[in-house]
Amino acid sequence: MSEVAGRLAVQAGARCLEKTAGGRGVLLGGVPGVPPGKVVVLGGGTVGKNAAVTASGLGGRVTVLDVDLQRLRWFDDTFHGRIETLFSSPHTVASIVERADLLIGAVLLAGARAPTLVTREMVARMRPGAAVVDVAVDQGGCVETTRPTTHADPIYLAEGVVHYGVANMPGAVPRTSTFALHNATLPYALRLADAGWEAACRADPALARGLNVVRGAVVHPAVAEALGEPCSPWSARAAA
Amino acid sequence: MSEVAGRLAVQAGARCLEKTAGGRGVLLGGVPGVPPGKVVVLGGGTVGKNAAVTASGLGGRVTVLDVDLQRLRWFDDTFHGRIETLFSSPHTVASIVERADLLIGAVLLAGARAPTLVTREMVARMRPGAAVVDVAVDQGGCVETTRPTTHADPIYLAEGVVHYGVANMPGAVPRTSTFALHNATLPYALRLADAGWEAACRADPALARGLNVVRGAVVHPAVAEALGEPCSPWSARAAA
Amino acid sequence: MSEVAGRLAVQAGARCLEKTAGGRGVLLGGVPGVPPGKVVVLGGGTVGKNAAVTASGLGGRVTVLDVDLQRLRWFDDTFHGRIETLFSSPHTVASIVERADLLIGAVLLAGARAPTLVTREMVARMRPGAAVVDVAVDQGGCVETTRPTTHADPIYLAEGVVHYGVANMPGAVPRTSTFALHNATLPYALRLADAGWEAACRADPALARGLNVVRGAVVHPAVAEALGEPCSPWSARAAA
Amino acid sequence: MSEVAGRLAVQAGARCLEKTAGGRGVLLGGVPGVPPGKVVVLGGGTVGKNAAVTASGLGGRVTVLDVDLQRLRWFDDTFHGRIETLFSSPHTVASIVERADLLIGAVLLAGARAPTLVTREMVARMRPGAAVVDVAVDQGGCVETTRPTTHADPIYLAEGVVHYGVANMPGAVPRTSTFALHNATLPYALRLADAGWEAACRADPALARGLNVVRGAVVHPAVAEALGEPCSPWSARAAA
Amino acid sequence: MSEVAGRLAVQAGARCLEKTAGGRGVLLGGVPGVPPGKVVVLGGGTVGKNAAVTASGLGGRVTVLDVDLQRLRWFDDTFHGRIETLFSSPHTVASIVERADLLIGAVLLAGARAPTLVTREMVARMRPGAAVVDVAVDQGGCVETTRPTTHADPIYLAEGVVHYGVANMPGAVPRTSTFALHNATLPYALRLADAGWEAACRADPALARGLNVVRGAVVHPAVAEALGEPCSPWSARAAA
Amino acid sequence: MSEVAGRLAVQAGARCLEKTAGGRGVLLGGVPGVPPGKVVVLGGGTVGKNAAVTASGLGGRVTVLDVDLQRLRWFDDTFHGRIETLFSSPHTVASIVERADLLIGAVLLAGARAPTLVTREMVARMRPGAAVVDVAVDQGGCVETTRPTTHADPIYLAEGVVHYGVANMPGAVPRTSTFALHNATLPYALRLADAGWEAACRADPALARGLNVVRGAVVHPAVAEALGEPCSPWSARAAA
Repeated sequence: MSEVAGRLAVQAGARCLEKTAGGRGVLLGGVPGVPPGKVVVLGGGTVGKNAAVTASGLGGRVTVLDVDLQRLRWFDDTFHGRIETLFSSPHTVASIVERADLLIGAVLLAGARAPTLVTREMVARMRPGAAVVDVAVDQGGCVETTRPTTHADPIYLAEGVVHYGVANMPGAVPRTSTFALHNATLPYALRLADAGWEAACRADPALARGLNVVRGAVVHPAVAEALGEPCSPWSARAAA
Repeated sequence: MSEVAGRLAVQAGARCLEKTAGGRGVLLGGVPGVPPGKVVVLGGGTVGKNAAVTASGLGGRVTVLDVDLQRLRWFDDTFHGRIETLFSSPHTVASIVERADLLIGAVLLAGARAPTLVTREMVARMRPGAAVVDVAVDQGGCVETTRPTTHADPIYLAEGVVHYGVANMPGAVPRTSTFALHNATLPYALRLADAGWEAACRADPALARGLNVVRGAVVHPAVAEALGEPCSPWSARAAA
Repeated sequence: MSEVAGRLAVQAGARCLEKTAGGRGVLLGGVPGVPPGKVVVLGGGTVGKNAAVTASGLGGRVTVLDVDLQRLRWFDDTFHGRIETLFSSPHTVASIVERADLLIGAVLLAGARAPTLVTREMVARMRPGAAVVDVAVDQGGCVETTRPTTHADPIYLAEGVVHYGVANMPGAVPRTSTFALHNATLPYALRLADAGWEAACRADPALARGLNVVRGAVVHPAVAEALGEPCSPWSARAAA
Repeated sequence: MSEVAGRLAVQAGARCLEKTAGGRGVLLGGVPGVPPGKVVVLGGGTVGKNAAVTASGLGGRVTVLDVDLQRLRWFDDTFHGRIETLFSSPHTVASIVERADLLIGAVLLAGARAPTLVTREMVARMRPGAAVVDVAVDQGGCVETTRPTTHADPIYLAEGVVHYGVANMPGAVPRTSTFALHNATLPYALRLADAGWEAACRADPALARGLNVVRGAVVHPAVAEALGEPCSPWSARAAA
Repeated sequence: MSEVAGRLAVQAGARCLEKTAGGRGVLLGGVPGVPPGKVVVLGGGTVGKNAAVTASGLGGRVTVLDVDLQRLRWFDDTFHGRIETLFSSPHTVASIVERADLLIGAVLLAGARAPTLVTREMVARMRPGAAVVDVAVDQGGCVETTRPTTHADPIYLAEGVVHYGVANMPGAVPRTSTFALHNATLPYALRLADAGWEAACRADPALARGLNVVRGAVVHPAVAEALGEPCSPWSARAAA
Repeated sequence: MSEVAGRLAVQAGARCLEKTAGGRGVLLGGVPGVPPGKVVVLGGGTVGKNAAVTASGLGGRVTVLDVDLQRLRWFDDTFHGRIETLFSSPHTVASIVERADLLIGAVLLAGARAPTLVTREMVARMRPGAAVVDVAVDQGGCVETTRPTTHADPIYLAEGVVHYGVANMPGAVPRTSTFALHNATLPYALRLADAGWEAACRADPALARGLNVVRGAVVHPAVAEALGEPCSPWSARAAA
């Protein structure tokens, strides 16, 4: 789903930049002689990678920020410098967001609230009609001005900047998303169906990490913290 | 303007394929394990090239059709086989349109009505929820089911296929379009201002070819034919 | 050797498609205006990757199937969408094989019989003169109609489809293969020579995994299963 | 046809390098750690370009020679240095042919005998088992040791080097060739059918240049020279 | 020679940016997490193209300015957006030069003085330690602060910016330059030697355009204007 | 720092090849019709990768040598054959160094002396005016003729070959290097500052591996060996 969301975020962002959506009236890819739009992607994980590749494919000038240098190196190797990378810090975020035509928030922490990397003040310093698409919106968003919207009414203005805050983006392309979800979950589903959930989780730590609640008790630390509940981790050994 | 229109056509087309627009719910770029959308571009001129590059950049699988083999060779050389080319004939058009997720009409003849390459029957054989964006709409369109729409209400359904028929597409990105138009016309404007229109047209056949009406008489053959008016060509020599 | 075999498989397949070999008479790369051949590669491991890259380099339109999503993502990142990926299932295999000009079988399990992913029925539905090259042939093949052939008489027809079944493909390019084999095995050979086989296997699990038979007993589970022999795994600790 | 021939020449050449064909046993693309084969393409026209691209796509290290600097610059721009270019002179030809694994002769002059750029002596200095594919064979060949062969028996040895001399290469892939030929000739055929040959040739110098014999007289200078016949050029004006 | 000069200009510019040369201490290509240097190339002709490609190859972020839109489109098609293009005007030049790490002057007019596109004031607004390499230096330079220097003492500071002003750049790589010059001039030399200069110039307008002085009279308009001499054009017909 | 050094090494090497530096007068990238320089990179680690990419970006023909086949495969996948790979052995090193225009030494072992892969004899067989840049110079160099030099006097001749031996290369671009160093070390610095060095090293083996001397005793095996001191490894457990 992160792959679908990352790619859709750019399509949505390109639309936000159109005049009819309240945007600056900038074509992301520019044309020969007219500079392309500047796209800033916060976070180089799966969402960020897919957003960056799509924005670059549309012809935008893309910069990805992350604190993980290994990840930035991977971008450099894989895209041969076509996608720029920038070490993320409050200073670099503030200075590059100010010049962005399109800002993609792609910072997600598994099960936890996304950190607020871009403050309302930073958004207010963006150019009027610039656009923000925060993929982390259903985890609170990494842009302070982001709030959830729906496919029916996806866009709103805040601080003069067009925001797209649809929480369930992949719902826009259900055909692609259904296949993607099926492909990603089928192996787990087969194992759960074959062995039962407890045996399957004992055998596969990846499955076990997906447990949120077991027999009424929260077992995932991030979920527990987010809800303010105590956490009683599920143990493969104890369950055996 | 053709460059802006060609690139925007793909952004509009991607939007048409979304479920909320009535489309098939297909993400043009697909994701790993799920095939990308098939994009068919009719015409390999400026509009077609820009549409093809943008669609390919989004991750779509693109085929360009044209009757000009030299142009198809140029595509092959320049895009290293990434964009497929197909010699255009009634047979190839019919068979590939049937399988397209997104059809871009990019056949424009200077000053003349666009030929109808895709009939209503062919559109009816496309998959439900497929999309058509006909950039030639203000010259009558090269797809039979195309009719002009506006930025306010851009999309309609015909034969189960989502159509986008905005006539003045570049108006969606006025900032980029204004610069593009300025860059393209400035040299001519300077020459017209320096020499007066008649001297400028005498000196530069490219300018002269742009004359439509001179002192009340239609001077451009294609315009004359389209309007059913007699044509009295303007001659640089006679004007001297 | 897998690298050599994967690359040669495409050269052999291109040849099978020639009329003189009984094939459809299709040039894998097409030419501008004429579509390229469709190449389907079953399995995205070393053989599959090398086959896919070579087929794409020749200008073919390539799809790789695998059940490992991480692997498909690697293809997408590395080849920037030039090589399509498809999640492998009986349904997707059947439907894409039917449209293939060239099918490359590249599914190998270490020491075990290859699974039969493509049935005789599926082959029968391929177009007359299409081609099959099954690199897994010496492990039984992953295409039901595959049988081993020799460099002297490499090609046969089955169900109207040209099959290439040479078991020892790399033998065709001994100069390249010898260097490749030397490079891959030299580090192991040095360690075996320096320490003796038992000490070397104790020190390096990768070497130990290569043991098939030790003092008359089959020690590799997959080999044992294939031969119907009992398996007595060799243990580094017991050997110490 | 030149496009088909250029691409096929590389497939044929790769085959010639295999041990079973008498070749050096070199895989054109090499594998990681083992160098690729060196491919030398004489002539950067349509045949040469298609051969060079295909050889490079297979992973070979390709150098194209031509005396037309503009053409070499086009290669450099289009392939971004991936295909090397070398100004052709007797000295550069001799020195690079000596190191080639595969030599592609792609020097064709319209209607005239190809010049002999590579002498028997140069071929004799090539490595044993290297390969020569001379696409100009039906115009006499640009390699002295080339002679015409057939699809049934395509290969022979000369000076220790494997030669492929099939005159009608595109016949190997009739399906692709037929479409290619159709696409290239259809526009001319339509004009000939509509207007009759004389009117069509008067109207289109490109068609007229294709005339070889008119009412029993040779009208094409190169054909006349090759046959030792007098030439009586056809004139559009005289014919009118 | 323009090709050599354009490529060398970037190597020289990268050196100027080093601290030991007085530069900003910026690595043109950056590293992952640290932005690359910004390179501005004035002029998209042969020198500019070669400079742009080399700077982009080193990892710099490159923008090419020109007034010829067709040329900018060629850049866009050929480099797939990797090299940005900007329509040149006094306004765009001033605003982009200000942000450049490296400015390459590549505006040359055949035989005439280069226009001064970058004023001393613009240079003064560049960042301290930025660099200027003006390939047009021996035609007066297109940057006001440029003056000729030598390979022995190539660099000087002006307005806090490092300038490289070697007039005969290709002299730094005589081996490459000699071959390049030989390749470019050989065809002309052969024709001059075969036919004598007058007959050769009569037969080939390209050669004739190279005439500067004939029997004591200046025949090239631009040279005449630059020297303030009268111009008596050489006519092929009169000479016959 | 390795990234900066690897990229700078090529810029320095390109300069060494210029005539004014005593080099062969070869432009690394060549020009159309004149072959590029041959660059040999010993070692495919971080330094080697960055050197190889930069040299290839400049247009050089690059070969990387390493004994790690996985690494060579990574190069092949990532650069699509543009950068050649060669399995490193005394034989392959000797034969390829002989033909190199520019040799980059990029073999570094953490904390240990670099192995001497290229002997004085091999250097003597290089072409007069070829260049050597040994990034491993401050660990003794992997080329026998290398000795440390300074930014003030960076170049010397040995065996007719231009050597660049600056030990602290990144010092040439302090602006880029400072950011790079900051980005790479900040996470460690934060952890050291928050927890104190002992707790931080106990918690993070990567940090602990960086310890050279603890309370007067050498704790790093390679450092101990290089200095001929006894080694008393620091243990996270003992320190607790």
